[in-house]
Amino acid sequence: MTNNFFEERKSIAQVEESIELAPKFGSDGLISVVTTDYESGELLMQAYMNKEAFTKTIQLGEAIYYSRSRKTLWHKGKTSGLTQIIKEIKIDDDQDCIWLRVNVKGGSSCHVGYRSCFYRAVPFGKSIKNKNKIILQFTEKEKVFDPSIVYKDSENPTKL
Amino acid sequence: MTNNFFEERKSIAQVEESIELAPKFGSDGLISVVTTDYESGELLMQAYMNKEAFTKTIQLGEAIYYSRSRKTLWHKGKTSGLTQIIKEIKIDDDQDCIWLRVNVKGGSSCHVGYRSCFYRAVPFGKSIKNKNKIILQFTEKEKVFDPSIVYKDSENPTKL
Repeated sequence: MTNNFFEERKSIAQVEESIELAPKFGSDGLISVVTTDYESGELLMQAYMNKEAFTKTIQLGEAIYYSRSRKTLWHKGKTSGLTQIIKEIKIDDDQDCIWLRVNVKGGSSCHVGYRSCFYRAVPFGKSIKNKNKIILQFTEKEKVFDPSIVYKDSENPTKL
Repeated sequence: MTNNFFEERKSIAQVEESIELAPKFGSDGLISVVTTDYESGELLMQAYMNKEAFTKTIQLGEAIYYSRSRKTLWHKGKTSGLTQIIKEIKIDDDQDCIWLRVNVKGGSSCHVGYRSCFYRAVPFGKSIKNKNKIILQFTEKEKVFDPSIVYKDSENPTKL
């Protein structure tokens, strides 16, 4: 890593109102990242970056996260080909959250096979009044690929 | 809290493919929540909920988070009146991330005064080649309210 794009955090005015990029990496060295689809606005994922991941993401224009479980940089889609091509990067008021708007090469990013990872809705409010159980509602009818073919030998990333 | 809406996490098939709500609360008891504007699709915030916050959010139909800094439930907008009225709740494949799509009463949710908290863009890729500094670009021209009037005696929530 040759560049250091990040300013020291000096004042609230600097962080909130200036043109300086002074992101807050937590005590674990990480910043939260939310990634949405550039066209549909759909939420694709929420993950984390460390300084190196954010720097490389800015340089490359593709999303590179930090995997907390694998404790390593994670160039999303590098294996599957479903890389996230960045269209816009935004940072929030206190610079502790990054918003990536991306196009996904290939068009799907859920390992279960659905187009989006968020294929189920949770009922709420009046519709669940006097109910003790929540019944999730599928919002996608069919899978766009068969994960047993695409990921045949890989371990399922879902952990109980 | 009288209801227990949440199932025990028993298998990957149950978590990924069933209609059971079996969210994963981390070792800190929290689950990540991403909140976007129902109309514009804009990212409003990323925060956390514990079991109680998620239960109350489902029951009330308004966003109730868990504040990690204040270590308490946080009914967003309760003081300012800018509550988040839920239009849709979705949960992801492995049920460790919640997506709230909301309408904000009053229409703004950034304490700095801008419409969105994400009022600055980070340049990337070719446009920053051979540059050592990143210059943030403001994507909103003006504030929709004056925070010094609205929040006159409150402490600024931004922490360095």
